[in-house]
Amino acid sequence: MITLTSDFGSPYPAAMKGVILGRSDAQLVDIAHDLPRQDVRAAAFWLRETLPYFPPATHLVVVDPGVGTDRNAIVVRAGEHTLVGPDNGVLRPAARRLAGDAPIETYVIDEQRLDPVEPATEAIDDGESAPTVPGGGQGPASNTFHGRDVFAPAAATVHETPIEELAGLTVLRAAEHEVDLELPTATVEGERARGEVLVVDDFGNVITNVPGSYLADRETIVANGERVPVGETFATVPIGDRVATVGSHGYVELDVNQGRGDDAFGLMAGDSVVLEPAESGDS
Amino acid sequence: MITLTSDFGSPYPAAMKGVILGRSDAQLVDIAHDLPRQDVRAAAFWLRETLPYFPPATHLVVVDPGVGTDRNAIVVRAGEHTLVGPDNGVLRPAARRLAGDAPIETYVIDEQRLDPVEPATEAIDDGESAPTVPGGGQGPASNTFHGRDVFAPAAATVHETPIEELAGLTVLRAAEHEVDLELPTATVEGERARGEVLVVDDFGNVITNVPGSYLADRETIVANGERVPVGETFATVPIGDRVATVGSHGYVELDVNQGRGDDAFGLMAGDSVVLEPAESGDS
Amino acid sequence: MITLTSDFGSPYPAAMKGVILGRSDAQLVDIAHDLPRQDVRAAAFWLRETLPYFPPATHLVVVDPGVGTDRNAIVVRAGEHTLVGPDNGVLRPAARRLAGDAPIETYVIDEQRLDPVEPATEAIDDGESAPTVPGGGQGPASNTFHGRDVFAPAAATVHETPIEELAGLTVLRAAEHEVDLELPTATVEGERARGEVLVVDDFGNVITNVPGSYLADRETIVANGERVPVGETFATVPIGDRVATVGSHGYVELDVNQGRGDDAFGLMAGDSVVLEPAESGDS
Repeated sequence: MITLTSDFGSPYPAAMKGVILGRSDAQLVDIAHDLPRQDVRAAAFWLRETLPYFPPATHLVVVDPGVGTDRNAIVVRAGEHTLVGPDNGVLRPAARRLAGDAPIETYVIDEQRLDPVEPATEAIDDGESAPTVPGGGQGPASNTFHGRDVFAPAAATVHETPIEELAGLTVLRAAEHEVDLELPTATVEGERARGEVLVVDDFGNVITNVPGSYLADRETIVANGERVPVGETFATVPIGDRVATVGSHGYVELDVNQGRGDDAFGLMAGDSVVLEPAESGDS
Repeated sequence: MITLTSDFGSPYPAAMKGVILGRSDAQLVDIAHDLPRQDVRAAAFWLRETLPYFPPATHLVVVDPGVGTDRNAIVVRAGEHTLVGPDNGVLRPAARRLAGDAPIETYVIDEQRLDPVEPATEAIDDGESAPTVPGGGQGPASNTFHGRDVFAPAAATVHETPIEELAGLTVLRAAEHEVDLELPTATVEGERARGEVLVVDDFGNVITNVPGSYLADRETIVANGERVPVGETFATVPIGDRVATVGSHGYVELDVNQGRGDDAFGLMAGDSVVLEPAESGDS
Repeated sequence: MITLTSDFGSPYPAAMKGVILGRSDAQLVDIAHDLPRQDVRAAAFWLRETLPYFPPATHLVVVDPGVGTDRNAIVVRAGEHTLVGPDNGVLRPAARRLAGDAPIETYVIDEQRLDPVEPATEAIDDGESAPTVPGGGQGPASNTFHGRDVFAPAAATVHETPIEELAGLTVLRAAEHEVDLELPTATVEGERARGEVLVVDDFGNVITNVPGSYLADRETIVANGERVPVGETFATVPIGDRVATVGSHGYVELDVNQGRGDDAFGLMAGDSVVLEPAESGDS
């Protein structure tokens, strides 16, 4: 199984799938291709919260603002899973979750040793004069579409290799250094939690990094100065009302029942969030 | 085969897929994940019009404005198909179509008996402090993501069980009551049809509940007071012109050739539609 | 393997998948369903640039502004690939790429000979009065959804037939004529290239039809009168700056690093593009 995650929109992911399916019989599963453009942190969050629900698989990830620079392309083994993507930290939070107590192994992809991606022959006399070699003949891989030309073939190779034998692949070499990324954590001092918005989801739910346990035994909190009822579900408040709840990732979310929390609270990813207890008895 | 339908947008459906693929080797097919948010009626329409084209399958449906309330999670057997989703009526119109003359059997999912969804172990020392148990330790399932924690595991279990043996599953018990939903039907009195807009599709086509037979032998109709030519296809009128046609669901649609019918007619889901014959001879 | 491409949005593609999966065990791969509506040229471009990365497959394409007119439904054999779609030219540029030096064979689908698409029986007494036969009983196929009623069953039939035996299928007959489409090509005279914008992608990258080789050994060009640095990658210019680069299709693209080239250059599909050398020494 190979999962695919990118910020490519449409139809670029299809070319990656074609390359993979020409080299592998892997089952393909899309995680998302509409992640916020070139937002490594948002992608790292969604991967960390989604991939642990999968059985062992190869996870292809291309959220890659540094495409074409000298950043490495890497393969990460995390427990029984492997991740393939750019060395910009996007894979790390998910890798830690997937590895558990097992060590994380990181390899650099030697792009020159990958079997080059070669699309079907092009007719000679059709007046359509695009160069046969992607990237305008400047090299074996396009400078702008490593998803198709580097990561997809690498993912297929990794998928076809028993996970214990990754280190023996000639297209991989041990990484000496890699970019780390840690998603920010909240601090709880006394009854006050200081954190930030990790992401806003498609529903407009504001997902903070404050652990859901902060809401235990509270009926009302004050979020950035505004009183908000605490509910176990959206439906504990009337439609259109605000509610603080423990979201499906285990964090405090600031939501609106059947509405958009980001609009109601005026919050977006990266914004600071301070949660405080409400005065008792006036909730 | 398991089909998936939700209003989740992206990337939440991927977590459901991960859970299913960890428990089943089902082929997964997306129906849609961008249905109008928490709109049970629209989802019921699209399921009724789409699922009957599938071979026998398990259909996972999560359009669930009551998530976290005491509404039941149910499994419905309809002929050779099974549907898994919330007990809010969303499954019923499709179930009637799929069952044909066969009885419809409904079971309540006993959430406590499902094997709990457990994501991969989390590293201890990575400073990322989310609780291991989704839902903040408040129970085996998140209060806000039953798609991942209840419906996905239930769909996998149902898929792995021969359909004749559903009643024997320990996670199911016979339902004593269930929520029904009937999509509204139009009335045709004399030459006048009174109905309503069931949905507007992605093209902007206004899909009414007036049977397509109303258009038989008519060249022009009056829709909500406005004259509209009747065409067998969009292309019978110039680009940008309005046309009444029999849509692919068998109902009268109010469309614009290569344009949006909803804008041209000023209609949205739930609006009333009155169709009348045009004066003969002046079409 | 059957790939699917359309401008249907959601959820119409699911009905096509249901029909196919009832008649075939093909692996399904989506190319895109959000292509620009009824834009044959844009679809032809994306198919030409994407399908050649796939192993031999059946490619179902429904971008069909003439649905319901007397345009033919066709099957095209191109090398080891087959394409199924409307006879409006959309398949041709991809077919030329896929065929290489092999001849292209075209067949007309005899719609009357296809096994009709029949959704599951509908209950009689449920008050939901849609006609059982799609298209309002006006014929075996809906006039507006040939994707479901004509192209999907044809693709399934083609997929289940060895490619050498296509000519023997009773649902196909040799085409006497077919609609051609050639994407426009640029002209390079001296140091000046005159071309046009083929498409704008989801990132806002402006993809022209000027071969990427035009940029070789240039540091700066003048595009429609404006000086633009040439870069091997987006990242050679600061975030938000314009850059001319060789895109992944081998053509000159006018882009913005982490921004939208179409907005920055004021260009959309079909617009003219003139590229000229910059005065040397002042780049």
